[in-house]
Amino acid sequence: MLIDGIPGDQVPLSDRGLQYGDGLFETLAVTDGRPGLWQRHMARLQAGEQVLGFPVSDKQRLWEEARALCAACERGVLKIILTRGSGGRGYQPPAVASPRRILSLHPWPDYPGMWYKQGIRLRICETRVSDNRRLAGLKHLNRLEQVLARNEWRDQSIAEGLMLDERGKVISGTQSNLFIVQGDVLLTPDLSRAGVAGVVRELVLERARQLGIVTQITELAPADLKLADALFITNSVMGLCPVAELDDRHYAVEGIPAVLRQSVQDALVWCNV
Amino acid sequence: MLIDGIPGDQVPLSDRGLQYGDGLFETLAVTDGRPGLWQRHMARLQAGEQVLGFPVSDKQRLWEEARALCAACERGVLKIILTRGSGGRGYQPPAVASPRRILSLHPWPDYPGMWYKQGIRLRICETRVSDNRRLAGLKHLNRLEQVLARNEWRDQSIAEGLMLDERGKVISGTQSNLFIVQGDVLLTPDLSRAGVAGVVRELVLERARQLGIVTQITELAPADLKLADALFITNSVMGLCPVAELDDRHYAVEGIPAVLRQSVQDALVWCNV
Repeated sequence: MLIDGIPGDQVPLSDRGLQYGDGLFETLAVTDGRPGLWQRHMARLQAGEQVLGFPVSDKQRLWEEARALCAACERGVLKIILTRGSGGRGYQPPAVASPRRILSLHPWPDYPGMWYKQGIRLRICETRVSDNRRLAGLKHLNRLEQVLARNEWRDQSIAEGLMLDERGKVISGTQSNLFIVQGDVLLTPDLSRAGVAGVVRELVLERARQLGIVTQITELAPADLKLADALFITNSVMGLCPVAELDDRHYAVEGIPAVLRQSVQDALVWCNV
Repeated sequence: MLIDGIPGDQVPLSDRGLQYGDGLFETLAVTDGRPGLWQRHMARLQAGEQVLGFPVSDKQRLWEEARALCAACERGVLKIILTRGSGGRGYQPPAVASPRRILSLHPWPDYPGMWYKQGIRLRICETRVSDNRRLAGLKHLNRLEQVLARNEWRDQSIAEGLMLDERGKVISGTQSNLFIVQGDVLLTPDLSRAGVAGVVRELVLERARQLGIVTQITELAPADLKLADALFITNSVMGLCPVAELDDRHYAVEGIPAVLRQSVQDALVWCNV
């Protein structure tokens, strides 16, 4: 682990990330020492810095630190946390913040190969995700709703839970974005009020458009999921993972366009898009 | 500072409070070595433990640690943070959590005496507070909205900012609860969707009822504030603080029933209610 470039595994109590969740994070797949989708992760991080009023961080330095930390890692997960650092008076941040950057490397989670061949089981969570137009899309450190949602089940045969907003619209999984295939159209929830705009979600949308697949970013209700031909979820570590089952409704993995899966898979393997 | 009863000023990076804001906190006024409104703070903390699925913490041990830390403190602020500790897999908490308790003592903020005599200036923040019925009322560590709201102004003549929910209803100040006096009635926003249910708010409501003042917990719009006879805010450190001005509207401090102010003041001085 590296804290501001120095090996360490503790942070000061005064850190605003701990005190208020005043910070951002990114989770990157590492392959052969290289953190994947770097530019996309950095673009989202920078968007978050702007909304939170952080000074823009030096992405080149972050890259060098990430490469140094991951150098000997064949396959792993790099988590980058950027907090507003210490200081300020209560909620009020210091006029000029000195953000703290925290890089940690974690083992690759060996998701079962069957997940990708046969699809996973999903559930719908009771914990709702709250609306905030200002924070929507960002990967900030206020993730208590996701923690509570993920704490709703221990059944290991269920890989992910979907979260609805207070109006009952589907927003995302606890740690993933959702797509549905309906006829020739690929749909994914609108995240302008809530949710995290995943980098693989963005990649999927781009690749789909390049392949001539019609995409729609829209409101989706649980009933729309029942009518769908296929579902899949995405995140940086899981990639694109088909859904086999949600609430007794079964989906055909083959309903996901094979060219899209291949295109996304290629992009993730190359890690440089 | 005490971390799990041991002096220290650092927490492990793995702490879920830092990683996800997975925790709770309380801020207590300390007078002559004694943390005030202890039972009320502990009741709210315990309500939070239940919602978050923490094991119930030992409040007697917390009291002993708090007393030890505050023993030499004439006047100060005790902050108690309770995180879910370390562990788990991503958002999923460990099946049995070992919460980490973090106690820190801070200087008393010397609010100007004029605030209490002449009242303070308020503003209305642009950052909204999001709805979440499950988390509403709790003092949890996801406070990014309050940080962003408090970061909207640097003008020191403005003491506090009010936050609205996404529907435009007034919820609270960034770090305080709001009351309005309208004729013979004392009103305060309903917090069943959003906001922190302050211990002094609860005290004010109780004392008002004991004094025969009609209280209403209700939805309030900014327009209702314009029509009010008087406004005041409350929190554990500030106590009850009258409002003189909000958006060019002036309020008479005398509009707040003197018996109520006195009753609340007495309770806060005695610190044992």
